[in-house]
Amino acid sequence: MAHIALPEGLPGIRGPMAFRPETARPLNEIVDVLLRGPHSLTPGERELIATVTSAENDCGYCQTIHGAIAAHHLGGDEALVQQVKTDRDHAPISDKLKALLTIAAHTARSGRDVTTDDIARARAAGATDLEIHDTVLIAAVFCLCNRYVDGLATWMPDDPAFYRARAKMIAEHGYVASTVAQPQAAAQGVGR
Amino acid sequence: MAHIALPEGLPGIRGPMAFRPETARPLNEIVDVLLRGPHSLTPGERELIATVTSAENDCGYCQTIHGAIAAHHLGGDEALVQQVKTDRDHAPISDKLKALLTIAAHTARSGRDVTTDDIARARAAGATDLEIHDTVLIAAVFCLCNRYVDGLATWMPDDPAFYRARAKMIAEHGYVASTVAQPQAAAQGVGR
Repeated sequence: MAHIALPEGLPGIRGPMAFRPETARPLNEIVDVLLRGPHSLTPGERELIATVTSAENDCGYCQTIHGAIAAHHLGGDEALVQQVKTDRDHAPISDKLKALLTIAAHTARSGRDVTTDDIARARAAGATDLEIHDTVLIAAVFCLCNRYVDGLATWMPDDPAFYRARAKMIAEHGYVASTVAQPQAAAQGVGR
Repeated sequence: MAHIALPEGLPGIRGPMAFRPETARPLNEIVDVLLRGPHSLTPGERELIATVTSAENDCGYCQTIHGAIAAHHLGGDEALVQQVKTDRDHAPISDKLKALLTIAAHTARSGRDVTTDDIARARAAGATDLEIHDTVLIAAVFCLCNRYVDGLATWMPDDPAFYRARAKMIAEHGYVASTVAQPQAAAQGVGR
């Protein structure tokens, strides 16, 4: 049971977001800019950064939904997402993404754990200042989301089919459309 | 030196915010709602929640500027802010605020570290669902800010007078006005 009385039927971050739409809207705006805005990193790569951060923080809901969104963007390759979470250095992804995922994992522990060596490795693999900035900020944003979800003891569905269906909707509609403050989107079942 | 090339002369979070105004604007909106919006907790109490979280994460810039803003709201009582950071259970603050600060400190470690006992203690001291929600979210937002500041290795001024002056401006103008994306505010030197 959640620590406070949240709207019924909304798992994970969606309950607190419906409870406090004033903060949900700008939070979803940040996530839309970072994960879905025009970028040199693909949406799938950016969702992997969110997923690895959430796994580092052991947040079940966030790592599952963002893992599902990453897989959706990556042609449905759920095995790849799983490998990136558990053994990214041997996963079939670019050296640049491996270096950025390491920066994200270190950011999850503490901003102070991001080292000059981490940055040098990313630069050597071709990462730009914007890619490094956005990796740190995506990881930081998911450190927020993970604590928001778990700090209020929200619930999460078990069925993988739930996350696949949500992932498809989010990939098509975006995060701002997921806020229940937008009645039409809520009525369509759009959301995380 | 920061890990990426940031605009000159802007300490702490202000450098990355000027680098990426698209994410700075909604982030400052969230902080304005949580720390300055209409509330049953005073601005000083909410800035103490931000300060304690930032101290828990050992973020020098955030704990110093938000400690200064808290002190500004608390009649300039810097000694009280220091005591709340180092020995809050003996500080002359309400039992409710002590309980909320414990929730914030636990949220900083992990959302999973917020226990039913933490919540029960806050409720026994009179905390409402909204106060508990906002405490968790303020702590989560500052886990973001702390990692954003330290994950990019930003610099911070040493002079306490700098923070006192900034604190006064932020208390008067708010956080959205601190973004350099607003040229008039930047020209006036408003910002964190």
